Amino acid sequence: MDTILKKEGSTVWITGLSGSGKTTLGLALKTYLTSRGVPCYVLDGDQLRGSLSQDLGYSSMESEENARRAGEVALMFAKTGFLAICCLISPSKRARNAIRARHAHLRLAFHEIHLKCSLSICRARDPKGWYSKYEVARLAHQQIRVGSVNLKYEDIGSFLEENSYDIPDEPDLSLDTETQGVSECLNTLVNYLKLS
Amino acid sequence: MDTILKKEGSTVWITGLSGSGKTTLGLALKTYLTSRGVPCYVLDGDQLRGSLSQDLGYSSMESEENARRAGEVALMFAKTGFLAICCLISPSKRARNAIRARHAHLRLAFHEIHLKCSLSICRARDPKGWYSKYEVARLAHQQIRVGSVNLKYEDIGSFLEENSYDIPDEPDLSLDTETQGVSECLNTLVNYLKLS
Repeated sequence: MDTILKKEGSTVWITGLSGSGKTTLGLALKTYLTSRGVPCYVLDGDQLRGSLSQDLGYSSMESEENARRAGEVALMFAKTGFLAICCLISPSKRARNAIRARHAHLRLAFHEIHLKCSLSICRARDPKGWYSKYEVARLAHQQIRVGSVNLKYEDIGSFLEENSYDIPDEPDLSLDTETQGVSECLNTLVNYLKLS
Repeated sequence: MDTILKKEGSTVWITGLSGSGKTTLGLALKTYLTSRGVPCYVLDGDQLRGSLSQDLGYSSMESEENARRAGEVALMFAKTGFLAICCLISPSKRARNAIRARHAHLRLAFHEIHLKCSLSICRARDPKGWYSKYEVARLAHQQIRVGSVNLKYEDIGSFLEENSYDIPDEPDLSLDTETQGVSECLNTLVNYLKLS
């Protein structure tokens, strides 16, 4: 039975380090679903930073609050029958578990998808230039500019360093984006969603 | 031409004092639209207080932030082709104008609907018991409990008193909910949306 074609909405929560490919996979999933008439909506971490969460910085607590808000909006879309696709680093396990619990409370499916990719590869990709900016700021003990915000290098480092990211213990699906391409990952994800 | 049946989404922002009938009218509009196959979503101030805005209190600044967040979520739904129906006191003209500007920037329609109802009638209706709670707390200089939050009576008063509510100068539509019933107001609102 095609779960992704069911009337009830659900949330696909894509978590992983910066540069692991969350937005790329999320947008590929959106394209796949849209072409099949499945209503979906992408909540992207970077876009949220410029809109719903523009009042938030990048400390651990603020990062948790950012994830909480994304989870609440995902719930609204899921309640409406949409498949909400969230692409957020969301480094805090506590925050991710809280969002899972909120979905369970409302009897809506929540799928935690972990994108596995080593920090060295993410650093080498550095799609937003964050890693290099951070490295320069860290060495000079300076502030780093992200969008229109000046941040302490310690704060931005809080979600660019491997040890600050809580690797999911039991994700619903784990995808290796270091060795596998987008279409292969999308294929696995779509099959998982159909079978779940 | 039926604007409410167009593919582009838009936001209907219903503002007015507590007890003026915002949620009642918003839900009536939802029922009307749903029965005609128009995708819509209701963002209700009280519900947001228990979810997306559960970290916020009731001071003027926090009330503005609550409206800002509702506006950002409304934008997400409107971008998806939904008619977002927001039922919020939203006492701050500055906050409402900022939301209007955000919609204009994204070329999405924003309709400010003002529910006119005198404070004395709202107090007499007191659907949530807020006015009486506030009056007791004010006289005793005590805290007031709203949901699971203890508030200073001054804070809760900031949006229960007429002089703290910025009456819209030029709302897109003004409805007198003191003298007119729900079906009459709904009829006027639906006609306005069709003609706008």
